[in-house]
Amino acid sequence: MGRHRKNREFELIARHFAPLSAAEPGAFALTDDAAVLALEPGRRLVVTTDTMVAGVHFLPENPAGTVAAKLLRVNLSDLAAMGAKPLAYTLSAALPENVEDGWLERFAQALAADQASFQVTLIGGDTVATPGPLTLTLCALGTVAEGRELRRSGARPGDAVYVSGTIGDAALGLAALRGELPGLAPELREALGERYLRPQPRVALGQRLSGLAHSAADISDGLVADLGHICAASGTGATVEAARIPLSPAGRAVLEADAERMTTVLAGGDDYELLFTAPPESADTLAGLSRELDLPLTAIGRIDETKGDGVRVIDENGRRIELVENGYRHFRS
Amino acid sequence: MGRHRKNREFELIARHFAPLSAAEPGAFALTDDAAVLALEPGRRLVVTTDTMVAGVHFLPENPAGTVAAKLLRVNLSDLAAMGAKPLAYTLSAALPENVEDGWLERFAQALAADQASFQVTLIGGDTVATPGPLTLTLCALGTVAEGRELRRSGARPGDAVYVSGTIGDAALGLAALRGELPGLAPELREALGERYLRPQPRVALGQRLSGLAHSAADISDGLVADLGHICAASGTGATVEAARIPLSPAGRAVLEADAERMTTVLAGGDDYELLFTAPPESADTLAGLSRELDLPLTAIGRIDETKGDGVRVIDENGRRIELVENGYRHFRS
Repeated sequence: MGRHRKNREFELIARHFAPLSAAEPGAFALTDDAAVLALEPGRRLVVTTDTMVAGVHFLPENPAGTVAAKLLRVNLSDLAAMGAKPLAYTLSAALPENVEDGWLERFAQALAADQASFQVTLIGGDTVATPGPLTLTLCALGTVAEGRELRRSGARPGDAVYVSGTIGDAALGLAALRGELPGLAPELREALGERYLRPQPRVALGQRLSGLAHSAADISDGLVADLGHICAASGTGATVEAARIPLSPAGRAVLEADAERMTTVLAGGDDYELLFTAPPESADTLAGLSRELDLPLTAIGRIDETKGDGVRVIDENGRRIELVENGYRHFRS
Repeated sequence: MGRHRKNREFELIARHFAPLSAAEPGAFALTDDAAVLALEPGRRLVVTTDTMVAGVHFLPENPAGTVAAKLLRVNLSDLAAMGAKPLAYTLSAALPENVEDGWLERFAQALAADQASFQVTLIGGDTVATPGPLTLTLCALGTVAEGRELRRSGARPGDAVYVSGTIGDAALGLAALRGELPGLAPELREALGERYLRPQPRVALGQRLSGLAHSAADISDGLVADLGHICAASGTGATVEAARIPLSPAGRAVLEADAERMTTVLAGGDDYELLFTAPPESADTLAGLSRELDLPLTAIGRIDETKGDGVRVIDENGRRIELVENGYRHFRS
């Protein structure tokens, strides 16, 4: 690597990224070989990482701020799914020659805003040149009290299956951004688009579910797929009642116009809501928690006694809705 | 991201990467949202990350095993420079469509071999598709006893400046791989190339230097540049005697044929030896440590009383050797 290019990297780090590390003395202003962090006694470290590639995981025309928010938040969502409290993160950026300084500045500003919202600090990273697309990797660190982490594998027959917030908005938002929902009112299109671009990791909820939920995951691959992961890890099956899946006003409007879009709600990913299972006797506690956090927590189904064929989705008449590989659905009957 | 592509990613992780996590139960076989790790009481977490891009940081024709080794080892070298003991790592891979399964298999095999050598375990990661070059990010975690981390900022006037191993081999190795050293005996060319492709992170040394050295860094940017980082962080200057810089037999042969190659030794990076400063009274202890680890530790200069102009390099007659931006040197007389 040429020295000039390397000098540019030092400069970018000093200007845009070092200020993001100011709250953590153990980050050494990103000038040492590594960061050093203290963990509170009795807590375990929780580690997750995600990579986003321009043109694959975000649209090249997306604003820098939404790219930053999504990158950080999808990782915080993984921490939330484990019941962890965010601590710090590293950021590695492979930058094409044509990335503008203004873009990086807006990117860093959005990270700064999210650091304040989610109480998390940049502690290290790497900035390199690439002849390819902008490629961003974030590794997030959190902590959880010993033995209190939420796992996918803890679901038990009889558990109710819950989701936070509303489901399907992010995938419908991507459809809206692609111009696939032309009949929808502009403010509803915008609301859906925002849900795709700027997910809300359920960080506070995750920590409160630790010790309360039997199992948890975040919805990144899609409701049915992620519930399938919980079932596979727990050795159970699950039944979801489609009519109970909580929808946003925009989501309801889309489904009223085109019932086939239920497929997007069931199979679309990127919602970053929490999906969890809890015993029926926790219903009141969860209702109280929902009020306290001002966040809907909705029971949408149950964990089955038998493993069966994984996740079954049924309509309001108890008939099974089948999702097939290419994303279309059809009804058996 | 298409579902088929995503299925390929799950499959790649399960086949090649999940087995690398077997030693750490808290990695959950890479099937949960995040990993959970326990730290021994009284130890702090040390975190570092590096990204490598095909065509930028490694040659596309380099064998998969050397790419894996370099990626892991440059991160372990950063841990070593902090005096940390390796614990675990995450790996994020952005893979072009044309990456062959055999390549990934050899890549994973090399990681497995290094995991055994360096006592470190894969605990998480992400595998995504990219239309660009293969891009690999590794985030390494280690631990160090509270307050015992090695910093760049601790150098004190009067300290001796030490390096481990031999210097310049990696940069000369890159020159050899590029065909720039045609006159060199093939076995020496190969020895240099191996040093570029497969650095030896000084993990055991780093841990032993904790509490002994005043400051440390690893040599990644080049001897003079990295000593410059120590000086800048410590508010000191330093003088290096070029004739005392330890060279390998291959390095000596190159310099005998072309004295101008001293520039490569002084300015070339990628050696991943440790550079550290220690008070003169530690000389005997360091000599003993060198014997014990069977690793040369050579005093090559001293930290100056005044900041001066950073790092001065002098020849055997005390005349200053100057390095200029484009890499050539000239003598002041």
